[in-house]
Amino acid sequence: MDEEKNEGNIVFVGNKAPMSYVIAVITEFEQGANNVVLKARGKAISRAVDAAEIVKNKFLPDVKVTNISIGTEEIESEEGGKRNVSSMEINLAK
Amino acid sequence: MDEEKNEGNIVFVGNKAPMSYVIAVITEFEQGANNVVLKARGKAISRAVDAAEIVKNKFLPDVKVTNISIGTEEIESEEGGKRNVSSMEINLAK
Repeated sequence: MDEEKNEGNIVFVGNKAPMSYVIAVITEFEQGANNVVLKARGKAISRAVDAAEIVKNKFLPDVKVTNISIGTEEIESEEGGKRNVSSMEINLAK
Repeated sequence: MDEEKNEGNIVFVGNKAPMSYVIAVITEFEQGANNVVLKARGKAISRAVDAAEIVKNKFLPDVKVTNISIGTEEIESEEGGKRNVSSMEINLAK
């Protein structure tokens, strides 16, 4: 699973506590971003929703969810085969 | 967490395997529904995304995601207090 990292205004949500990603999003906005995208796959999807809700409800009330999209990505399993995993992107903007 | 059940065209996603909810959605459409809403809270959110993707990609290619919304619900914990849990609704239509 992806670790927390920033590429442009994208925050990849992995297995850390939701607050890690909340802080990453807030940092992007404080550095001047007008929009930030939370991306997650598999079980991290619910954590991305948690992070988006915490950002909106507790820290940055001006931030709105402007779009949510879901999809399916094919990933290589450790055994060499391929499997499908669900993905989600949550667009936040102020 | 909610068990699988149907109220109108709503499918509540709980802790069962994603295919349980896939079948529930397909059944709704086969019984004449033009739209079905998948609802989930907490960790079941990623399972709702899985179910929506499987319905679209494997069974009903005419079905589209028409809206996705997220929110926060307050639930009573077993100890008597209250805590917040993230929620999601995925609208599917054909």
